[in-house]
Amino acid sequence: MLKSIPERIEALRRAMKEKKVDAYIIPSSDPHLSEYPADCWKSRVWISGFTGSAGTIVVTADKAGLWTDSRYFLQADIQLAGTGIELYKASLPETPTIPEFLLTALKEGQTVGFDGQTYGASDALNLQTKLSKKNISLEASYDLVGDLWEDRPSIPKNQLFEMPVELAGQSVSDKLNVINDQLHQQGADCLILGALDEIAWTFNIRGTDVTYNPVVVSYGFVSEKETVLFVDQQKVSKEIAENLQKEGVILGDYSRIYTYISRLPHDYTVFIDKAKTNYALYKAIPEACAIIDDITPANHLKSIKNETEIKGFRNALVKDGLAMTKFYIWLEKQMAAGEKVTELSAAAKLSSLRAEQPLYLMDSFAAISSYGAHGAIVHYTPSPETDATLLPEGLYLLDSGGQYMDGTTDITRTIPLGEPTEQMKKDFTRTLKGMIGIAKCKFPAGIRGCLIDVFARKALWDAGIQYLHGTCHGIGHCLNVHEGPQSIRMEENPVILKPGMVMSDEPAMYRTGEYGIRTENMILVREDSETEWGKFLTFETLTLCHIDTRLVIPSMLSVRELAWLNKYHQMVYELLSPQLNEEEKAWLKEKTSEI
Amino acid sequence: MLKSIPERIEALRRAMKEKKVDAYIIPSSDPHLSEYPADCWKSRVWISGFTGSAGTIVVTADKAGLWTDSRYFLQADIQLAGTGIELYKASLPETPTIPEFLLTALKEGQTVGFDGQTYGASDALNLQTKLSKKNISLEASYDLVGDLWEDRPSIPKNQLFEMPVELAGQSVSDKLNVINDQLHQQGADCLILGALDEIAWTFNIRGTDVTYNPVVVSYGFVSEKETVLFVDQQKVSKEIAENLQKEGVILGDYSRIYTYISRLPHDYTVFIDKAKTNYALYKAIPEACAIIDDITPANHLKSIKNETEIKGFRNALVKDGLAMTKFYIWLEKQMAAGEKVTELSAAAKLSSLRAEQPLYLMDSFAAISSYGAHGAIVHYTPSPETDATLLPEGLYLLDSGGQYMDGTTDITRTIPLGEPTEQMKKDFTRTLKGMIGIAKCKFPAGIRGCLIDVFARKALWDAGIQYLHGTCHGIGHCLNVHEGPQSIRMEENPVILKPGMVMSDEPAMYRTGEYGIRTENMILVREDSETEWGKFLTFETLTLCHIDTRLVIPSMLSVRELAWLNKYHQMVYELLSPQLNEEEKAWLKEKTSEI
Repeated sequence: MLKSIPERIEALRRAMKEKKVDAYIIPSSDPHLSEYPADCWKSRVWISGFTGSAGTIVVTADKAGLWTDSRYFLQADIQLAGTGIELYKASLPETPTIPEFLLTALKEGQTVGFDGQTYGASDALNLQTKLSKKNISLEASYDLVGDLWEDRPSIPKNQLFEMPVELAGQSVSDKLNVINDQLHQQGADCLILGALDEIAWTFNIRGTDVTYNPVVVSYGFVSEKETVLFVDQQKVSKEIAENLQKEGVILGDYSRIYTYISRLPHDYTVFIDKAKTNYALYKAIPEACAIIDDITPANHLKSIKNETEIKGFRNALVKDGLAMTKFYIWLEKQMAAGEKVTELSAAAKLSSLRAEQPLYLMDSFAAISSYGAHGAIVHYTPSPETDATLLPEGLYLLDSGGQYMDGTTDITRTIPLGEPTEQMKKDFTRTLKGMIGIAKCKFPAGIRGCLIDVFARKALWDAGIQYLHGTCHGIGHCLNVHEGPQSIRMEENPVILKPGMVMSDEPAMYRTGEYGIRTENMILVREDSETEWGKFLTFETLTLCHIDTRLVIPSMLSVRELAWLNKYHQMVYELLSPQLNEEEKAWLKEKTSEI
Repeated sequence: MLKSIPERIEALRRAMKEKKVDAYIIPSSDPHLSEYPADCWKSRVWISGFTGSAGTIVVTADKAGLWTDSRYFLQADIQLAGTGIELYKASLPETPTIPEFLLTALKEGQTVGFDGQTYGASDALNLQTKLSKKNISLEASYDLVGDLWEDRPSIPKNQLFEMPVELAGQSVSDKLNVINDQLHQQGADCLILGALDEIAWTFNIRGTDVTYNPVVVSYGFVSEKETVLFVDQQKVSKEIAENLQKEGVILGDYSRIYTYISRLPHDYTVFIDKAKTNYALYKAIPEACAIIDDITPANHLKSIKNETEIKGFRNALVKDGLAMTKFYIWLEKQMAAGEKVTELSAAAKLSSLRAEQPLYLMDSFAAISSYGAHGAIVHYTPSPETDATLLPEGLYLLDSGGQYMDGTTDITRTIPLGEPTEQMKKDFTRTLKGMIGIAKCKFPAGIRGCLIDVFARKALWDAGIQYLHGTCHGIGHCLNVHEGPQSIRMEENPVILKPGMVMSDEPAMYRTGEYGIRTENMILVREDSETEWGKFLTFETLTLCHIDTRLVIPSMLSVRELAWLNKYHQMVYELLSPQLNEEEKAWLKEKTSEI
């Protein structure tokens, strides 16, 4: 057994020497380029001891480095101590990028290796272009870390389950017909799916293979002639296998995808999304095949929710609102009674309240339960080492969500635990103006999200405040809480906003060392009106949870913003109160009272 | 002499046959891809009789077609009658694009020809990619129309003149140093300039070779070793030639650029902007040279005005405001006296008033003098056939500008000629809110223009109204009235907004068959403040001309918008009145009085 990190690195170097690989890259991804990889794909953690969610290890004959972003600088420093692995603080001006490092560290004509199954095709091709300047070649055939990792967990074997058509709103065969139509229109003969959420949506399946995303480790292949779901057959009950067959789906073994793809007819035009396909799978496509590289039809279709899915979201958001309401009542009581509540215990309580709701599966991500200055750390998640106790002062930001069979949720609220300062109230009100700015805006059909991002930022910009993350991401239907392809953010994204898209709406502001403020609702794109200038769209707010008005300065809101807030609170009360007891009702009535 | 269009087309077909060209394309551009080509490059007009500003002719053995956009459908229909040339209405779903047409009309392996000197390199390369599907090759060596055109005008021979450093704010040698520094930083050895405004800016020269743009037909070459201005030597006085030499500039003959470029050292990395370089010039670069294709350093530098240029703009805008004020006083009197005023006569009057101002060179574009329903035609310019008489009713939209040695201007105002309707007022006020929305916005440094475009549109979108053109374009300093590389519009443009950029601010709305409304000011990007979130920028309004408050509904403006308008009017009066006579002063005082 290779117990220490230096032993593991040395063993890797021996393997590299044997395979004639001069530098070896170990990224954080799995073969599906997932946000949350299963344990068996945590090679980077095994080789380095670094447990952050993002980071890439590069090992050469005499150097070993970890590239990670500012969220993890401190953690990496601690976890890398004594390992001989150097920390490369990504995105700092003085830090070389991985290609820059490789171009310096390696000689003309040397070789860079990585496991092609856990490296994105787009990324690998970009790397290749950059390294070609020095005639450095790629060797993607070896999983050198996997070969050394003796007690590596197996690929998850959890039973998959069906997303019933009563909740999905569309049968698998209907989805396949639409996908095939779109493939035809674009001149493609088949589609390869590597992204687990696109596969889960297409085949109406869900699972518990990874945390937070209710997906199934699998690959998909769609064509008019044959449609195959490549998945560990032991995970599929006889009933589900039969149902899938009825819908026109053949089951293939998970690992067979590579052989299957390599045997595609040479006159095929293959549709893939290189950004969501691993390099090994991309390389398995016969070279003679033409390739269309774009966002897949499954991904586009998945982003536009049908009436059944939207109904599901509405149900899920009532449940989520009930859990949130009960949570804040509990928190208020605990604090009033002087009971100890920490970031972690609060998050656990909220999880348990969500779990009491019907059709709950799991949380949709690790709650960002952040008190005081922790709130200003954008991607903070509490750990036993950082777990702060909530005191009767300052602000408490809680960003959380649940996976229910009828919908996925994502909500952030910021509340005062003591008497808020004037600055806190001003900051909160500016952020709220941004959230309402998106929620009630009206815009012409056919535009990209970045064009309306500023509705979320105007009040902050006017005060010289900016936040650097996106404003709105897509949200899956009992799928990934962060999904594409659309977004509303400052960065260019050519995907246009369409009715039926469900998204977050989460402007924010962060005062380093003091507090963070974020108010996040879920919104649905819907048609507003049609004029001689064309169709106009707007949003409908789906989330049902009070916004803490103790932090609102009413005079800073316009008449319309104030009306929006009061109407929203009225809706929250009307839809949640029927399922609350008298005490809870009274509490919510007060929290949602008109200002 | 080939007198009729059919004769000309037939002669072209004979030439095509001789040169083994199966289809021949005649675009509207000149060798510099200018917005306003000189008469000698109006081959497309000569071959087709179609005089619109945009349009491309394609001729095959049995077909001839004109592709033009919706502005010119009617005009093209009339001008093409009897020519045998078919009108292809560009951008309509049923209309093939030119590449689509060629792929259908031609057989595998045939040849498409055009004059490489008047075809953009980017466009030619895109065409090549598309036609390669059918192995159709490009032949760019022949100017077949030029060979037939017996009385073709010569290339303009007007004397060029200097932009004195007192107005330019930077000497040629300083500009060349900065350009060479930037070329170095990007790893380029030299820069080829084909765009006439980039050349005029770099060499501090101006001319009257074409209408509206005070540029000189020329090419530029910049490197540490040698900098050459390729221009007809007869246009350059001895004094200017000597001055240029002192600044480190060699003069070369206009036509020698091709030979010069073809002899560049093979280890050179050449910087060009393929979108602003003709295909023949691009092809003249030795194949062994590496190419950097991007917006040129000259273009970026030109867009950021120095203090002297900004001072010049301020002077120019006082002069322009005086001309505008006098014009509207004249118009009011003419109308009151029942004198006939038409779109053309009004535009001519305004031109003559501008011409009375010091340092006036020419108008900066053909005035869009549009009365009533003509105002709803976005790119309308009056012609003797359409010239409408102004009546005491409806709206009159006038978009015009001047070229002064100290700055270029661009302004639009819309005024009522009779009692405006409530709808006119509402539309005007919504458009005005957009104009103010841009003028007074604050935004973080480093962002692209498209992110703030919505400030111009929000009030219109809220009413279900949209306009389809951009909101803000760059404006040259005694150069092109439309210049890049920055913009504020819905389309993606990666160029970021920087302090010193001078732009238009022109939201609009158009009611087809009724009227158009546009209010356009010139604005300057400047620093606003610096906070812990970074630098923030804002705009300063440069244009000085009253906005007709008879069309404003004050209650539709926010407190801040109203304050902006009143403050703006106060500034207009303060800066213009010292140069007005008592009668004019009184008139302007009333027009700029507080609402």
